Amino acid sequence: MRFAKGHGTENDFVILPDPDGALDLTPALVRWLCDRRAGIGGDGVLRVVRTEALGAPLPESARSAAACAWFMDYRNADGSVAEMCGNGVRVFARYLIDSGLAEGPVIDIGTRAGARRATVGADGDVAVAMGEVRTLGKGGAVLAGEDLRGARISVGNPHLAVAVDRPVAEFDLRDAPLLDPAQYPEGANLELFREVEPGVLEMRVYERGSGETRSCGTGIVAAAAAAAAAGGGGSAWTVRVPGGTCAVTLDPGGGALLRGPAVIVAEGETR
Amino acid sequence: MRFAKGHGTENDFVILPDPDGALDLTPALVRWLCDRRAGIGGDGVLRVVRTEALGAPLPESARSAAACAWFMDYRNADGSVAEMCGNGVRVFARYLIDSGLAEGPVIDIGTRAGARRATVGADGDVAVAMGEVRTLGKGGAVLAGEDLRGARISVGNPHLAVAVDRPVAEFDLRDAPLLDPAQYPEGANLELFREVEPGVLEMRVYERGSGETRSCGTGIVAAAAAAAAAGGGGSAWTVRVPGGTCAVTLDPGGGALLRGPAVIVAEGETR
Repeated sequence: MRFAKGHGTENDFVILPDPDGALDLTPALVRWLCDRRAGIGGDGVLRVVRTEALGAPLPESARSAAACAWFMDYRNADGSVAEMCGNGVRVFARYLIDSGLAEGPVIDIGTRAGARRATVGADGDVAVAMGEVRTLGKGGAVLAGEDLRGARISVGNPHLAVAVDRPVAEFDLRDAPLLDPAQYPEGANLELFREVEPGVLEMRVYERGSGETRSCGTGIVAAAAAAAAAGGGGSAWTVRVPGGTCAVTLDPGGGALLRGPAVIVAEGETR
Repeated sequence: MRFAKGHGTENDFVILPDPDGALDLTPALVRWLCDRRAGIGGDGVLRVVRTEALGAPLPESARSAAACAWFMDYRNADGSVAEMCGNGVRVFARYLIDSGLAEGPVIDIGTRAGARRATVGADGDVAVAMGEVRTLGKGGAVLAGEDLRGARISVGNPHLAVAVDRPVAEFDLRDAPLLDPAQYPEGANLELFREVEPGVLEMRVYERGSGETRSCGTGIVAAAAAAAAAGGGGSAWTVRVPGGTCAVTLDPGGGALLRGPAVIVAEGETR
């Protein structure tokens, strides 16, 4: 099986070129590919398949993906299916261009959440339109015995974005935060962020089901939206995460653009 | 740069074929290769180089390696040089055979600790002679507030092997144990083991500089030697670690044979 490995701000993926939809990508195979010691290693798998070769009909929410030449079949490391991944779609776009499968600089990529437009900049960074960002009110969590209050935000998936008043490096994110199940029946990602200079956030994230990760695209957008809602700045944000730095532009219509690096580090074949 | 990835009981390595010693393997390059998110990912790097192409003279302790066709240039994930690695040398032997660089089933491999004889079994397992095992007396550590007492053992590198009376899964190995600096001026690996049936140990290990790992070849040997010294059995031990199972045979002369699986999972090129 051919594969590539790539990352966006160190959110990393095993990329499987499968233009004709020939791979039988079982949950067990995904778990092995993502296993960092027994397999290749990654936060998820990006299967690169022609939309017309998908076989299965697209759900209603993904209807706009039908017009895209390429579809990002995203899987979480545990083998489950996910609708979208902000860092993943940027790495996906970088792979299409590096492999000669698309020309760019603008590529419409099919996902289970619908078409997503990626734009590759002259500096190599990839920007992607993240869809609608919704602020849903206040929420809370207990992290390592500490009460945290923040904003409940949906970027397709649920977030609790918490402004903190000390360096984010000082928090202990080894254990899962306790979230109110009434507010978050399906859990949520927790972002801790601090505005270190005007328009610049430092952030760490605990992802449900994964633990702390080095970056989370939707979490970066959620933190920027929470900072903007708190009146801390305008529409343009720089967000520093452990794995690198991204830029977020919030638009008045409720959408967001996420821009940052996307890198392919290796290609190979499994034995 | 060509590479392979492989593991022995989930102690995993980036393997670099470099027969003619042409690679400039800097600490920064090793750190990047071992980075699990920004690079390929591994507990260490195994450079596969002909002993005659090493360039640098071998240290006195490694003189016996001069007669070996192939030399295992082992590096830790932090870029530092290490003398030996019990799981690494098994994966190294597997790579030589799978790549047609050696015939087997017996291969003498040069390491900085001298020649090591690897034997590949019909079942695919690889056995390696681990050199001298020395029991140095009693030692202690504090782990998550708990006092632990065990045996100080040298397998070339220092260990504290502690017999525990409850399942090893119940211990918290997230923080480094506190070792007596008088006993361990350069630190040590901590093994927790329990005899679950006669001759069978379950074990977890905290490796200095790395944290908990899924397997440690010298640690497995240290646990078997400690169990034998405590009178718990004979010379043949089975040791179950989180990443798999190995067999240890202690010989009356003070040596030990470590046998277990070694797998190459992928090959490729970096970009």
